[in-house]
Amino acid sequence: MELAGLRCVVTGGAGFLGATLAAALAARGARVTAIDAMLPGTGANRANLDGVDATLIEADLATADLAPLLAGAGAIFHLAAHTSHMGSQADPRRDLAQNADATLRLILAARAAAPAAPVVHASTRQLYGRPRALPVAEDHPVDPPDANAVSKWAAEQYWMLEHKVNRRHVVALRLTNCYGPRLRIADARQTFLGLWIRRVLEGGTFAVWGGEQMRDLAFGEDVAQAFIAALDAPPGVYNLGGAPAVTLGELAAILVRANGGRGSFRVETFPEDRAKIDIGSYIADDRAFRAATGWSPSVALEEGLARTLAWFRPRLAAYV
Amino acid sequence: MELAGLRCVVTGGAGFLGATLAAALAARGARVTAIDAMLPGTGANRANLDGVDATLIEADLATADLAPLLAGAGAIFHLAAHTSHMGSQADPRRDLAQNADATLRLILAARAAAPAAPVVHASTRQLYGRPRALPVAEDHPVDPPDANAVSKWAAEQYWMLEHKVNRRHVVALRLTNCYGPRLRIADARQTFLGLWIRRVLEGGTFAVWGGEQMRDLAFGEDVAQAFIAALDAPPGVYNLGGAPAVTLGELAAILVRANGGRGSFRVETFPEDRAKIDIGSYIADDRAFRAATGWSPSVALEEGLARTLAWFRPRLAAYV
Repeated sequence: MELAGLRCVVTGGAGFLGATLAAALAARGARVTAIDAMLPGTGANRANLDGVDATLIEADLATADLAPLLAGAGAIFHLAAHTSHMGSQADPRRDLAQNADATLRLILAARAAAPAAPVVHASTRQLYGRPRALPVAEDHPVDPPDANAVSKWAAEQYWMLEHKVNRRHVVALRLTNCYGPRLRIADARQTFLGLWIRRVLEGGTFAVWGGEQMRDLAFGEDVAQAFIAALDAPPGVYNLGGAPAVTLGELAAILVRANGGRGSFRVETFPEDRAKIDIGSYIADDRAFRAATGWSPSVALEEGLARTLAWFRPRLAAYV
Repeated sequence: MELAGLRCVVTGGAGFLGATLAAALAARGARVTAIDAMLPGTGANRANLDGVDATLIEADLATADLAPLLAGAGAIFHLAAHTSHMGSQADPRRDLAQNADATLRLILAARAAAPAAPVVHASTRQLYGRPRALPVAEDHPVDPPDANAVSKWAAEQYWMLEHKVNRRHVVALRLTNCYGPRLRIADARQTFLGLWIRRVLEGGTFAVWGGEQMRDLAFGEDVAQAFIAALDAPPGVYNLGGAPAVTLGELAAILVRANGGRGSFRVETFPEDRAKIDIGSYIADDRAFRAATGWSPSVALEEGLARTLAWFRPRLAAYV
């Protein structure tokens, strides 16, 4: 799809992946509108859009009049979401409102204001729950381990109904754990890795829970390219993975190495409340998306971590 | 589970299945509280509880203070729901609020007021979408054909999380099409069969859309016994089917026969808006539930239809 001059709307556009995508779209000549509620505790950060040629509109999908914001959109990327697993268990109604109901509001506005715009929706591997076998393909049963997986699945399926019933071009990407510049690193709310990165940048020690779980981490800029490639993929739901999988213990060691050997970690037992909703190891089978688009990750794990650390080092004050 | 003297809460308790269950529980000596929002357009009808030894509390799960209503409950049966497929497509946010958010409100209240009460949740075969093969077992992929299937799946999964994370005894029954005394027959909002029944009772003609689709209809009193049996089933999600499957064309002929040959029907093409969300044929594989509980349907289809017609005949004014 030709992006030059195309009006692209990115919800969650001040967040980690949203702003990374906004930057990638702007670099391809798109006119980018980033919509973000700028809620505290989320990944939203104005610094994420520093130097990015995008218009930030502060608006909450749960309450704002959305149709005017979508008028003229040539593509819609829906990344705004409540992402905290523990938070969803503590307040599942808020999680449902932010993910499922807000997505419905966006869908209804898009029907009115941008009925032909293709949509790429950020879904999550969380909805598979604890994998029954690895790697996990799209036909793996959906088995939510927490309320967040329920609401995120509902949001994905509402979009897919827009394809099935209303023939809109919709692609949902079920993302693996992502990392990179602009990640929320203040705490572990967005991902454990955010806090790890903060700790090594501050010269401290971080905790690795368990350590044997495997993850196939995806670098943010690669993920952004996948969202763009998805505009030209056949409609449907696709897994999106990342680098070859490593254990969390291995990841911790690579992170310290990427930081020039500075930093240390200790392996701890999983806290009981998190163990209840932990999914164990995850590795995406994303061959369907790669075959449909030709996309593949371009940044290796250690390089991605080094680039992430280098990006944060001069900006740390804006992120902690 | 011993029901005599047990306080049982039935949400949607003035509806078709809720009131049928309330009657069955009361007949077993339970002290029954029926909670119902009595919303227009739903299956709620005060006449459904005529002669049933149950207390009806008019309360909307979306707004009422629920904990006091659940205090002392020995078992909770959650049947309240928005059930209209077309209605969910027209107003998916309302459907989500009534099904998923209201269920979360009930769950949170139950945590506070009745943390040990077992729960039986009314789920639906609708969430499987158009079956990939027949009969449909519980491991069939979930593939919502409409917004109602999304919200109903979310409600089911929120309850299952109460089992997985909080160890509550929860059984969800994915119901096939149900019919029987107390069915909403004013129109086709609850099921096409309701309107068919009204038409033959009034001596008119009814329309059969398509006619080749197969259904394994479950008789309400059998379904009520299944809800009671579910209290003693291992926690989990089970399909619940009914009588041996017939085509809608066959069903129409059986209905006219059950009415003593009075009544007629015509076969019509499926309306386009409904065809988009139609699931085709459905037959439940409910062997898991039968094996777990010993339950099986006791009322044959023609007998069930005859009993339904006989039940409605003197009560028609209260239902049309």
